[in-house]
Amino acid sequence: MELNKRFAKKVLSVTALSCLFFGSAAGVSGNGTVSASEHNGDVKNVIFLIGDGMGPSYTTAYRYLKDDQNTMEMEDTAFDPHLVGMQSVYSADPHFDGGEEDEKENIPDSAATATSMSSGKKTYNGAIAVDLEQENTKTVLEAAKEKGLSTGLVATSQINHATPAAYGTHDESRNNYDAIADDYYDDMIQGEHKVDVLLGGGTDFFERDDRNLTEEFKKDGYDYVTTTEELMNTTNDQILGLFAPVGLDKAIDRPEEQPSLEAMTTSALEALSENEEGFFLMVEGSQIDWAGHDNDVVAAMSEMEDFEKAYEKAIEFAEKDGETLVVTTADHSTGGFSIGEGGPYKWDPSVIHAAKRTPDYMAKQIVEEGAEIKATLNEHIDFEVTEEEVSAVNEAMEKAAEDEKMTEVDNAIEAIFNERSGTGWTTDGHTGVDVPVYAYGPGSEFFEGFIDNTDNAENIFKLLGLKKTEEGAPLADTSTSYPIGILLGTFVAGAGAILLFRRRNLNI
Amino acid sequence: MELNKRFAKKVLSVTALSCLFFGSAAGVSGNGTVSASEHNGDVKNVIFLIGDGMGPSYTTAYRYLKDDQNTMEMEDTAFDPHLVGMQSVYSADPHFDGGEEDEKENIPDSAATATSMSSGKKTYNGAIAVDLEQENTKTVLEAAKEKGLSTGLVATSQINHATPAAYGTHDESRNNYDAIADDYYDDMIQGEHKVDVLLGGGTDFFERDDRNLTEEFKKDGYDYVTTTEELMNTTNDQILGLFAPVGLDKAIDRPEEQPSLEAMTTSALEALSENEEGFFLMVEGSQIDWAGHDNDVVAAMSEMEDFEKAYEKAIEFAEKDGETLVVTTADHSTGGFSIGEGGPYKWDPSVIHAAKRTPDYMAKQIVEEGAEIKATLNEHIDFEVTEEEVSAVNEAMEKAAEDEKMTEVDNAIEAIFNERSGTGWTTDGHTGVDVPVYAYGPGSEFFEGFIDNTDNAENIFKLLGLKKTEEGAPLADTSTSYPIGILLGTFVAGAGAILLFRRRNLNI
Repeated sequence: MELNKRFAKKVLSVTALSCLFFGSAAGVSGNGTVSASEHNGDVKNVIFLIGDGMGPSYTTAYRYLKDDQNTMEMEDTAFDPHLVGMQSVYSADPHFDGGEEDEKENIPDSAATATSMSSGKKTYNGAIAVDLEQENTKTVLEAAKEKGLSTGLVATSQINHATPAAYGTHDESRNNYDAIADDYYDDMIQGEHKVDVLLGGGTDFFERDDRNLTEEFKKDGYDYVTTTEELMNTTNDQILGLFAPVGLDKAIDRPEEQPSLEAMTTSALEALSENEEGFFLMVEGSQIDWAGHDNDVVAAMSEMEDFEKAYEKAIEFAEKDGETLVVTTADHSTGGFSIGEGGPYKWDPSVIHAAKRTPDYMAKQIVEEGAEIKATLNEHIDFEVTEEEVSAVNEAMEKAAEDEKMTEVDNAIEAIFNERSGTGWTTDGHTGVDVPVYAYGPGSEFFEGFIDNTDNAENIFKLLGLKKTEEGAPLADTSTSYPIGILLGTFVAGAGAILLFRRRNLNI
Repeated sequence: MELNKRFAKKVLSVTALSCLFFGSAAGVSGNGTVSASEHNGDVKNVIFLIGDGMGPSYTTAYRYLKDDQNTMEMEDTAFDPHLVGMQSVYSADPHFDGGEEDEKENIPDSAATATSMSSGKKTYNGAIAVDLEQENTKTVLEAAKEKGLSTGLVATSQINHATPAAYGTHDESRNNYDAIADDYYDDMIQGEHKVDVLLGGGTDFFERDDRNLTEEFKKDGYDYVTTTEELMNTTNDQILGLFAPVGLDKAIDRPEEQPSLEAMTTSALEALSENEEGFFLMVEGSQIDWAGHDNDVVAAMSEMEDFEKAYEKAIEFAEKDGETLVVTTADHSTGGFSIGEGGPYKWDPSVIHAAKRTPDYMAKQIVEEGAEIKATLNEHIDFEVTEEEVSAVNEAMEKAAEDEKMTEVDNAIEAIFNERSGTGWTTDGHTGVDVPVYAYGPGSEFFEGFIDNTDNAENIFKLLGLKKTEEGAPLADTSTSYPIGILLGTFVAGAGAILLFRRRNLNI
């Protein structure tokens, strides 16, 4: 079935273009039933979803997690049917002159990768939409706003965290959180704020002693919402939603007042789709990465589910709309996560299903609230915890220094899930592995095969007909992404003029 | 540039089919310049390359290794331009009734995965082309031979190891090495041996006290070769080449008498391409996996290079031939290999480039030949080994039990490379992560997107027009892979008859 579906999809998606092309070359004229606009329509909206840290082990593990073990087949996740290839994620950090203390890192961080995906430029780790010379790089979100499209950023981290920041702001360092929050308000395009819908965490950065950005946004007509209910009730087309001081809680721990990524995505789509000109929306499953840094498989899978549901909403929207491109990928992988550890050929998802809260949540109960260890574990875990496991948590609690108790207790609880499930980790940082790319809708064929993370921006600039420079002139440095029409032209050798003009229009 | 190339390739590869399809649907007839046979020709030959254990971290790390660090861009490997998607690799082991002692393993082994890729059937770990009921599963190699094609198996392991065995033989257990070797001679198809070209290691299994299979093969007209030179000199179209008692040495350690995977692949292609009917050839980079089991990054990258060169020969052949499909993938990943370890965002390929031999080779010199430790390390490594590193190897040599000295000294030398390069590992077994799929040539579009390892066999059966059962009747259980023409037919709704017949021919 898969084979047939894929085949049919492929034939249909490129047919009109191909026939136009060869029709011209061979001197055959069509009868108008296969018009280019019907079958190879321009892209009106782009939804770009980033599972932060979501390397190939995460997407595979999530399939294991969701598998109905009574059937022989391992069922597809919502992502699988739209896999189109993989992308490289390396940054240009080794080529950055960051002074004597600067480490030359050839494994990327989220700032560099987000800049590549937002602007099409390789840069150094930590860079928020600035290049190796620390000059601002124009982002697809900015270009979309410039063209009159609506724009949105949705994340489960603080909304001024690296990934969303690299779409809507510019900074030499991802760590300048206040300055980045300020940028969302202060940086204007044609007299308008750049981002119409900002949803995530971050009140700590937007409501400060020195400045209250939420009040400023409200004055300018934004609805400011801080709970799920308020988010559901707003009908404004410009929304600032901040649902936590910093990041939201992990999906499995999240209280009702904090929205799911799905709810935020749905609200963003409702607001943005009001614009007849179209929109650009970036949605980040931010904390898949944070779970990876923590080597916490329970949190990682909980965040994967949150992300999958948001992704499904994006696909649903695109299915109905017909002019929306949905691209889904990761910025890098995190933690050296492996399905299998220490020898056995087994990875047991039931261990993860048994968790009702993250180890972080349980550790907090124990360390901060003084909850009894065994009772806490048994309350939040659906399997019987062994005496050895309880002892290990006890020991962490007793022996760790005061300021390390939370970390150590958390680690001891994580170890229960890692060991029982057969989950391996190699680092609390990132790894360099290529990551999967999923694409659906018009233009999705441009994301097929092996691409680089910079290709995402290059493709979106073209498909939305955006200007890469302020002036809108063709850039001297875009030789690698120059009009597709020109290459095609060499094949057509003088014919196929209609197609040439069509493709060129995409590339101005 | 990438984008343009990909785009052009995609347009060209499906154009003829699309035009035929829409041309018919729209009542437009072509002028003959775009004939289906020219642009969407049948597949005459299939070269199926398996990098055993070559998960996504391996293919990415190999790109890091080959990168020219003076340029900003990380250059493509030979694999990258032909990436078409990824595949799931899980086995049906949890559904196998292997008795009380049997572990239900949901991470696959190479026997199960090779059976899936050779026969299109999920099975239990350890199964050599037998299903869950331990009934023989018909393989694409057998079906190819049945149809009159030539067949070949090339590996750097013993040629009766799991992967090649699951193409050319059947056994309840991969461990029955002698029986598997016997099968290569004893199992006949229409009075002929199944495999025309067998190249790899394994004299220990073919020249035994109880039976000398090499003599038997020679009597039946095979050339038997045991050195690179003999392999180069044979002009026979049936060859048994065994170049080591068990597996060949790792590429970086390999003596001249043992051929490279590239040389074996070239020889196999020369012999097999004599057959006007076409051929099926499976080529395995067997020891990428062995290096992964050993957590040896030097050996892993050396084997990746050996595999890449063989792959390049296959692509070159296909480029010239025009009727050859080349599919390249892995059976699973091994070791939980990660690019980055323990925190730092760095992976240093120069450490790996500095190795002139594998840790295994050095350990053998030290433990078996009594070579002095520091001198041995300095002889075979192009960086200055620290006193601490020498001490660690010394300690392993002194403290390990006699029968563990080799392992412990090897581990201590591997640790030098792992720690310096920033390479992480989580297991000495396999992991469950999806693996990349590369495809080139006619029919390559069938491997695009997310596929399952069983789809490889299903596709090859169809593309080569092979019979899946002895009788050649359509199988009741192939509903998931039934004629593409039928699905297309629903779109064409009565038109496009020419295309329908063409596609159906592939599926009988």
